[in-house]
Amino acid sequence: MVRYKAIISYDGRDFSGFQRQPHARSVQEEIEKTLLKLNSGVPVTIHGAGRTDAGVHAYGQVIHFDLPQLRDVEKLRFGLDTQCPDDIDIVEISIVPDDFHARYNKHSKTYEFLVDTGRPKNPMMRNYATHYPYPVDLALMQEAIKDLVGTHDFTGFTASGTSVQNKVRTITQATVVVDDKTGFLVFTFSGNGFLYKQVRNMVGTLLKIGNGRMATSQIRTVLESKDRNLAGPTAAGNGLYLKEITYEE
Amino acid sequence: MVRYKAIISYDGRDFSGFQRQPHARSVQEEIEKTLLKLNSGVPVTIHGAGRTDAGVHAYGQVIHFDLPQLRDVEKLRFGLDTQCPDDIDIVEISIVPDDFHARYNKHSKTYEFLVDTGRPKNPMMRNYATHYPYPVDLALMQEAIKDLVGTHDFTGFTASGTSVQNKVRTITQATVVVDDKTGFLVFTFSGNGFLYKQVRNMVGTLLKIGNGRMATSQIRTVLESKDRNLAGPTAAGNGLYLKEITYEE
Repeated sequence: MVRYKAIISYDGRDFSGFQRQPHARSVQEEIEKTLLKLNSGVPVTIHGAGRTDAGVHAYGQVIHFDLPQLRDVEKLRFGLDTQCPDDIDIVEISIVPDDFHARYNKHSKTYEFLVDTGRPKNPMMRNYATHYPYPVDLALMQEAIKDLVGTHDFTGFTASGTSVQNKVRTITQATVVVDDKTGFLVFTFSGNGFLYKQVRNMVGTLLKIGNGRMATSQIRTVLESKDRNLAGPTAAGNGLYLKEITYEE
Repeated sequence: MVRYKAIISYDGRDFSGFQRQPHARSVQEEIEKTLLKLNSGVPVTIHGAGRTDAGVHAYGQVIHFDLPQLRDVEKLRFGLDTQCPDDIDIVEISIVPDDFHARYNKHSKTYEFLVDTGRPKNPMMRNYATHYPYPVDLALMQEAIKDLVGTHDFTGFTASGTSVQNKVRTITQATVVVDDKTGFLVFTFSGNGFLYKQVRNMVGTLLKIGNGRMATSQIRTVLESKDRNLAGPTAAGNGLYLKEITYEE
């Protein structure tokens, strides 16, 4: 068997998420259906670096899968790209060692979150940015977001009831700026792993801080207390993008 | 009766066009359905400044309609906006004289056309820019596009079989640039009126010029010959935006 790694992008709008699930359209199912055809009717399982939720987009999701033959990677990319639905794009394919695993090999992920604070809202962007038509103070959010950087127990920012035991993660970068072209808020987070709904809960909290309804010290309070009830609401998935995954050599 | 003018924006992706037609979803039908509710069940007809085709978007379409009462325009805007589907946004409403007509009052329209020349393509933009993954020389298109400015008979750039008799129109602005953020080609055209499929045919011709498969003099050749067969193919509607309409005082 030959192991292939692929970088893929997708529009999350019409997916219930990355992961295959019964009675719902998933990225995994669509790619596996296409690989089945390209593999003479023999099923192929793909493994993703991370699961994205319903409505969440990706520019740089990474998957791996095995095929019995050594193939020309550009021909394989082209075949998979053109036969997958329009809302999935196969950006790049490479051959990797047999022990490479998209999820378990050490890597850093970067997520971006777009917030449209404009009035009027932009109907073309309704599935690609979260609409938050309230005043926000960028400087307050820029001050508060720094407290997320570092190694912390992020229990207070994950969904309650998650089965993951160890909730300590490291965030290496956390920034928020205003895009001068679109006027959107752009949140960027990089780190060695993120818990379920962590990014969306961090953004929901930062927006409340920017709106003056939470103190700038609230990030520290949530980290220290590990209390989900002290964080802001979960921001909608339509503003979230899995931007890039970088593997350690 | 009181006449209202509204500026509206919409995502053309899921519409068969602006104009009401049987067995197909249109912008006109959706807004008229909402106005019917806001007008105690009495039907209201809206008139648009121009028809947009299937898949074509608008940031600044203008409509007018009559209601029996004088209403607070911000309350009316809010009610219409929140009760219309998500892919239509009511940007602004104002009261206008009884003889104002969105289509017949003299006005200038500006259209924008976005072309994604990138590889990989961006799946998030597949309904919001036309994908043209071929090399294009910006300078060649910038030279050729100047020939569109002025008063010309645009017969060669309209769809054959159109019922409009007078095909002379004036273009006051025609430019093409590369957006430094997205890398997309942005074509902008302003003028006193555009024929059916004129913008999409002009863009299709300019792309062929940029790609070196037509001479830069081809714009002049099409204008002078009035021969549709000498122009390039019709560019897809998904890259087209009705950006702004300005009425003469």
